[in-house]
Amino acid sequence: MDLSADFRLRDPAVYARWYGEEHRAPAWLAKFVYGLPELHRNEIRNTQYISGVGCNATATNLALLPLARANLLDTTRPIIVDIKVGSSEGGNSPSLASHHPERSGAVRTFAAVGHRHTAEVEQELGLTNVHLSITSIEMVRGVLATAHCFLKAGTTEKDLWRAYRATYRDEPFVRIVKDKQGIYRYPEPKILSGTNYADVGFEFDETTGRAVALCAIDNLMKGAAGSAVQAMNLMCGFDERAGLEFAGLHPI
Amino acid sequence: MDLSADFRLRDPAVYARWYGEEHRAPAWLAKFVYGLPELHRNEIRNTQYISGVGCNATATNLALLPLARANLLDTTRPIIVDIKVGSSEGGNSPSLASHHPERSGAVRTFAAVGHRHTAEVEQELGLTNVHLSITSIEMVRGVLATAHCFLKAGTTEKDLWRAYRATYRDEPFVRIVKDKQGIYRYPEPKILSGTNYADVGFEFDETTGRAVALCAIDNLMKGAAGSAVQAMNLMCGFDERAGLEFAGLHPI
Amino acid sequence: MDLSADFRLRDPAVYARWYGEEHRAPAWLAKFVYGLPELHRNEIRNTQYISGVGCNATATNLALLPLARANLLDTTRPIIVDIKVGSSEGGNSPSLASHHPERSGAVRTFAAVGHRHTAEVEQELGLTNVHLSITSIEMVRGVLATAHCFLKAGTTEKDLWRAYRATYRDEPFVRIVKDKQGIYRYPEPKILSGTNYADVGFEFDETTGRAVALCAIDNLMKGAAGSAVQAMNLMCGFDERAGLEFAGLHPI
Amino acid sequence: MDLSADFRLRDPAVYARWYGEEHRAPAWLAKFVYGLPELHRNEIRNTQYISGVGCNATATNLALLPLARANLLDTTRPIIVDIKVGSSEGGNSPSLASHHPERSGAVRTFAAVGHRHTAEVEQELGLTNVHLSITSIEMVRGVLATAHCFLKAGTTEKDLWRAYRATYRDEPFVRIVKDKQGIYRYPEPKILSGTNYADVGFEFDETTGRAVALCAIDNLMKGAAGSAVQAMNLMCGFDERAGLEFAGLHPI
Repeated sequence: MDLSADFRLRDPAVYARWYGEEHRAPAWLAKFVYGLPELHRNEIRNTQYISGVGCNATATNLALLPLARANLLDTTRPIIVDIKVGSSEGGNSPSLASHHPERSGAVRTFAAVGHRHTAEVEQELGLTNVHLSITSIEMVRGVLATAHCFLKAGTTEKDLWRAYRATYRDEPFVRIVKDKQGIYRYPEPKILSGTNYADVGFEFDETTGRAVALCAIDNLMKGAAGSAVQAMNLMCGFDERAGLEFAGLHPI
Repeated sequence: MDLSADFRLRDPAVYARWYGEEHRAPAWLAKFVYGLPELHRNEIRNTQYISGVGCNATATNLALLPLARANLLDTTRPIIVDIKVGSSEGGNSPSLASHHPERSGAVRTFAAVGHRHTAEVEQELGLTNVHLSITSIEMVRGVLATAHCFLKAGTTEKDLWRAYRATYRDEPFVRIVKDKQGIYRYPEPKILSGTNYADVGFEFDETTGRAVALCAIDNLMKGAAGSAVQAMNLMCGFDERAGLEFAGLHPI
Repeated sequence: MDLSADFRLRDPAVYARWYGEEHRAPAWLAKFVYGLPELHRNEIRNTQYISGVGCNATATNLALLPLARANLLDTTRPIIVDIKVGSSEGGNSPSLASHHPERSGAVRTFAAVGHRHTAEVEQELGLTNVHLSITSIEMVRGVLATAHCFLKAGTTEKDLWRAYRATYRDEPFVRIVKDKQGIYRYPEPKILSGTNYADVGFEFDETTGRAVALCAIDNLMKGAAGSAVQAMNLMCGFDERAGLEFAGLHPI
Repeated sequence: MDLSADFRLRDPAVYARWYGEEHRAPAWLAKFVYGLPELHRNEIRNTQYISGVGCNATATNLALLPLARANLLDTTRPIIVDIKVGSSEGGNSPSLASHHPERSGAVRTFAAVGHRHTAEVEQELGLTNVHLSITSIEMVRGVLATAHCFLKAGTTEKDLWRAYRATYRDEPFVRIVKDKQGIYRYPEPKILSGTNYADVGFEFDETTGRAVALCAIDNLMKGAAGSAVQAMNLMCGFDERAGLEFAGLHPI
C-alpha cells in the first residue's frame, strides 16, 4: 500500500501532465489498484498493490459516483467541484501560511485551477470535464466537496434517490444525508471528525437541470488513513470495518 | 434608501418568480436605483430612491463585472458561484442553527440551488445562466464568492488584467488582489472585517478556457450598511469615502 | 443516579446557602454517594443512589485531590481556581448569549464569585477556602481548571510527584501530564474531546511555595455523562471502563 | 522609545532576577519612564526615554491600579492573576506550537509560574505578592487579565466603584464595564480588537472579602503599539488620542 500519489494514475501520460515530470516506474502503474473500496472492492481483495487516495478526490468521487454510474450526468456541460478543506490537509510542517495568527479565520483559495486530484476523479469516474477548486477554511479536519453539475433532460429527483441508494445501500461507510428539516440537512464534515464515514447528499433543481452533489469526509480518515485501513482489511480478509468503528462526536 | 429586498429587482415578474408572491407596489420598482455605486454611480447621484444590495449578490457582481463588461464570458456555459459566508448573514435572532455548539465549525450548505440573490446578479450583469450556492463556514463576518466560469475562445490572461483594471482603476473601494507569492494571493474576507473594501481577483487556465473570479467583502459593510453609506454619500454630494475609512486589521 | 445538582451536597444548610432555597427532601441527602469514582469508588460499588457531578467541580477536585490527600496545602491561604470552559456547558437552549456572532471568540467572565460548584469542592476535599471563577472561551467541549494554591513550608517538587502518583497510579481515567518539552506539557482539553480522561498536572515554585494544579476534562464526558457511565459500571459490577474506551483525536 | 523589555525595570537586581542575566546598561535604567500613560502621564510628557510595556503587565496593572491607589488591597494575601491570551502574543515566527492544527482550539498553560511581567506589575503597583499565570486560548488578538485578590476588612462595593471611577474618570482609553444584564457584563477582549481601549471591571463578594478585578485589552494595541503611540503623542505634545480613534467592531 503506497499512500503517496505515485501510483494512483494508470496512464503515465496523464501522470506526466499533472505532476510535471515523467513517471519513474511506469511499468508498475498497471499493478496497482486505486485504493477506494467503494470503487474497487473486489479488485482490492485480490491485489497485492494498492495506492492511497487523494482526500479531495475521494470526496469528489463519492459525491459524483452515483450520478456517473447511473449515467445521469450531462457531460457536455462542465462539472465544477468547489472544495472546502481544513488546515490538516497542509501537513505537519509549520510555515508562515500555517502560523495561527495568519491561518486563523482564513478563507483562502489555493489551486483555483489545475489541482492534481482532478486526474484521479476523471480517471475513476470516466469523465473529462471535471474542474476542481480548493478553499482552505477555519477547520482542522474535514473536507466538503460541493460538486456542481447538470443532469440529462428528463431526469427527476426520484432518479437521483434511486442512483444514490443503489450505489451506497450496502456500503458500510457511506451514508446518504438529505433532510427537509433540522440543522443537519446536508453532509457536514464537523460531525465526522475521527470517523471513516463519507456522508453524501444532493440537491436538484428540475427546472434548470442543475444538481449539487455533496460529500463530507474527515480527510485524515476516509480521505487517507481510514480508507487505507479499510482497504487493508479487505486485502487481509478481515471485517472491512475493523478498527474503524468510531461514530463521531456531537456537539463538537 | 430601502435596505430590504423589496426594491432591488426591476421586473415584477422576476420578483414574483424568486420571492414567491406578487410585488405589492410594482409601480415603485422603476423609481429605484440598485444601490451599488460600482454599477450605478451616476444614477445614484441623481435619484431619491435607492435599494439596498444583497451581500451575496454584491460579492458575485463585483467578481464578475469586469468579465461581463469586457464581453469575455462564454455565456453558453453555466456560471457557477460558490459562496462562503459567516454567521452574521443569518441576522441577530438566536436559533438552534445559530446556537454556538451547533454552529461552531459548521460547513453547512444552504440554498444549494434557488438562492434569491441570483436574480440581482442576472439583472445587474445582464446574464441568464448564473447559479449560486451558499455554504456557511466558521466565520462571523465575511463573504467569499468564487465564481466559476468559462471565457470566450482566444481570451488571454492579459485580457483579464485589462478588464479588471479598466473596471476598477478608479474605484475607491475595490482592490485587485492577485499575487504570485506570499500568503494573501487572492481576496480573503478576514482582513476586510469592518472595512468597506471589496477585494477582487481571478485565476485563468488558458488551456481549458476556465476562469475563477473571486470577490471578498465584509457582508455587514460592503455587502450591506457600507454600500448604503457610500450610496448616501453620493446622493448627498459628500465625499464618497466619508465614514468608510477604516482600513482593517492584521493579524485578525 | 440523579444527574441534577439536587443530591450532591450532604448538608442541607450548605445546600440552602448555595442554592438559595431549602432542600425539599433533606432526608434523602444522606442516602446518596457523590458520583465521582476517583473519590468514592467503593461506596459507589455498594450504593443504590448516586448523584451526578458538577463539571467544574470535577476538574477542580481532580486537580487538587492529591495535594489535599497528602496534606500539602497551606490552608491559611486562599485556593483560587480559575476555570476556562466551552459553550456546551451552557446547555442546548439557544439564547442571545449563545448566538454564534455573539458567542464566537468570547472570553466571557461568568460567576466571577459565588459559583455553586464551590460547595462540591469544599465538601469533597474537606476545604473551606476555595474560590472559583469561570470564564467562557472559544471552545465547544472542554474544561481546564487552573487551581492556584500555596503549599506548606518545606514542600518539594518531589512531594508533589509522589502525591499525584500515589493518588492516580491505578486510576483508569486519570493521567498525569507534565513534560519539559513538546507542545503538550500540561493538561489540555482539546485532545480529550469525547474521552473520559481527566488529565492532571502541576507546576511548583519552591521559592514562593506557590503551586498551580491543573486538570483538563471533556465536560460532557468526565464532567457529566462519562463519569456517570463509569459509576454505573461500578454499581453493576461491569468493567469500569466499559463503553468509555475512546482515546481521542489528534490533531483536532 | 524602546519597545523591548530592556528598560522597563528600574532596579538592575530585579532585572537580573527575572531575566537571568546582568543588565548590560544599568546606568540607563533610571533615565527611562515606564511607558504606560495611565501610570506616568506627566513624566512621559517630560522625558526623552520611554520603555515599552508588557502586554500582560498592562492588563494586570490597569485591572489592579484603582485598588492599589485606594489602598484597598489586603496585601497579606496573595494576588493571583490568571491571564488568557491569543496567539499573536507569540510573535510572527512559525513553529510547531503555532502550527494551526496544533494551536487551533488550544487551552495551553505557559508560564504557570515565574512569568517575567510579574516584575513590571510589582514595580508599578508597589506590591510584592503578585503571581501571574498565562493560558493561551483560541484567539488571535486579545488579553483578559482576571486578578483574584482580597480587600481589607470593611471594604464595600461602593468603595470599589469610587476607586475605579476616581482612577479612570478622565482617562481617554479606559472604560469601566460592569453591567447587571446583557451579554457584555464584564470586559471582553473580542470587541476591543484593533482599538486602544482597556476595559476594566470587577466583582466583589463582601462576605469573603474576595474581589475579582478584570481588564481586557488588544495586546497589539494597548498592550504594545497602541500604548506606544499614545505615549509618543504625549511626548510630542499631540492630542493623546491621535491615530487611536478606532472604536472596534461588533459582531466580530
